[in-house]
Amino acid sequence: MLSSSDKKTYFLGIDGGGSKCKAILVDADKNILGTGISGPANPLHGYEQAVNSITESATLAIKDSGLTDLELKNVIAGVGLAGINLPTLFEQMSNWQHPFKEIFLATDLLIACLGAHQGQDGAVMITGTGSCGFSYVNGDAYTLGGHGFPYGDKGSGAWFGFQAVNYVLMSLDGLKQPSMMNDEVFLLLGIKTSLEMVELIAGKPAAFFATMANLVFDAAEAGDDPAIEIVKKGAGYISGVARQLAKQQPPRISLIGGLTPRISPWLDQDVQDKLAEPLCPPEVGSVIYAQQQLALL
Amino acid sequence: MLSSSDKKTYFLGIDGGGSKCKAILVDADKNILGTGISGPANPLHGYEQAVNSITESATLAIKDSGLTDLELKNVIAGVGLAGINLPTLFEQMSNWQHPFKEIFLATDLLIACLGAHQGQDGAVMITGTGSCGFSYVNGDAYTLGGHGFPYGDKGSGAWFGFQAVNYVLMSLDGLKQPSMMNDEVFLLLGIKTSLEMVELIAGKPAAFFATMANLVFDAAEAGDDPAIEIVKKGAGYISGVARQLAKQQPPRISLIGGLTPRISPWLDQDVQDKLAEPLCPPEVGSVIYAQQQLALL
Repeated sequence: MLSSSDKKTYFLGIDGGGSKCKAILVDADKNILGTGISGPANPLHGYEQAVNSITESATLAIKDSGLTDLELKNVIAGVGLAGINLPTLFEQMSNWQHPFKEIFLATDLLIACLGAHQGQDGAVMITGTGSCGFSYVNGDAYTLGGHGFPYGDKGSGAWFGFQAVNYVLMSLDGLKQPSMMNDEVFLLLGIKTSLEMVELIAGKPAAFFATMANLVFDAAEAGDDPAIEIVKKGAGYISGVARQLAKQQPPRISLIGGLTPRISPWLDQDVQDKLAEPLCPPEVGSVIYAQQQLALL
Repeated sequence: MLSSSDKKTYFLGIDGGGSKCKAILVDADKNILGTGISGPANPLHGYEQAVNSITESATLAIKDSGLTDLELKNVIAGVGLAGINLPTLFEQMSNWQHPFKEIFLATDLLIACLGAHQGQDGAVMITGTGSCGFSYVNGDAYTLGGHGFPYGDKGSGAWFGFQAVNYVLMSLDGLKQPSMMNDEVFLLLGIKTSLEMVELIAGKPAAFFATMANLVFDAAEAGDDPAIEIVKKGAGYISGVARQLAKQQPPRISLIGGLTPRISPWLDQDVQDKLAEPLCPPEVGSVIYAQQQLALL
């Protein structure tokens, strides 16, 4: 049986997101010993659920490692969370009576960036359900975009789905030409009229609209002009974010998030040429963050 | 003292909206005998509040008339409500054990149209907090737009405010040139940073965004290019709605709603030339609707 009795230092790297929370248990050399996944951990959507998900994913990662005498209170946790750049949320999370030996809180953006560039300076653009740009160069963090759905997060999955809905409704009103997206949106939502559509989409969150992003790219790739226009607009925004980030002179820039394979080919060629593969996932970035902070103490 | 003991027929005309409910008490010749105003009556935002507001505004209108022996149960009510084109809401409102002698339910659009054209055929475009187009010609009702904020309602107050927020956030990110709107939005919201802005606007309803519409028009009229672009886009949509409505060949077309004086000068000239002044307000349209329905019985 594995034992932690040799007093080695263990780290938990946690990536708390809006749909799930991922944890890894590593040793000081970042060898992965165990992993755990739990539910949503976006404190913007509920503090209690966030802290419960963090604890649960951490507990699962330790269990997965087989280190039976290792407890949460023996482990140093690096935790990346959306929204904790907002002062009220940061204060709330900082006051958490957490179960760990120590906790280091960072934004989801910083841990994604540290992961993508293995702790070195760099920049990331994230296009998943939401979108955001972030760079970390010479200790300076710089964020742009990512202001939240629906007024921000252009070029994100939710934004693409939102544009599709918007277009289809105008098209059904006779104010825009029909698009391949019309049938596909109706099919995906299981509806037959714009009235049903309006009832169904009322008050839905970003994640709902993000489910429609792929059909916009499918239609664009099949040559549908309205879809092409939407994709170009969203990709154009992400290209603009990349250029704005480049002004911070990051040595590397990566595109991450679920929409990456769909949107990459639509970015401006000069931006595509500059993209570097992300080296590690965000939860490894959380470990790196905790280790960097410890080194500073 | 006035008395209703001569067995005249009385009508209540009710216009239930998202911010208030207006009622008028009239005689069979539509002479206004009393008026009443109560709180919000949009069943989409709460059935209980809607029916309470309707009853309250009606009670106030009767009280205002001085007809002391007139009761709700003696009066025929025409009630216009947003959202009751949605089957679930129509069913819910139809099952209401209402206090009137009889009740006739119509959409807010139909009563606005009947009011604007005094019961004759015609079309209306509404640009207030939301936006919508509607025509009623030869007994055929035709609606376009008005799918709800934020995915629809282009050219509405909420849409203009939303565009302003969107622009200002991109501008603060360095992705768009600064606009006169930047300072004005910060001033109106009483904030100093984009972070405060993001915290403040999260989850806000259409009415919140609509408060920013006027500053977009102010900036556009002062020559601010980004604001001009937004105003032209919104007004262009409303002009498109007008042309689409014109295909139904309405004898008259009117623009109504709180944004009317701001957006009218920006509509295409051919659309401006076709606009006719609304003849009566929506609550009179509710009376006309009730009287038309009675005549059909």
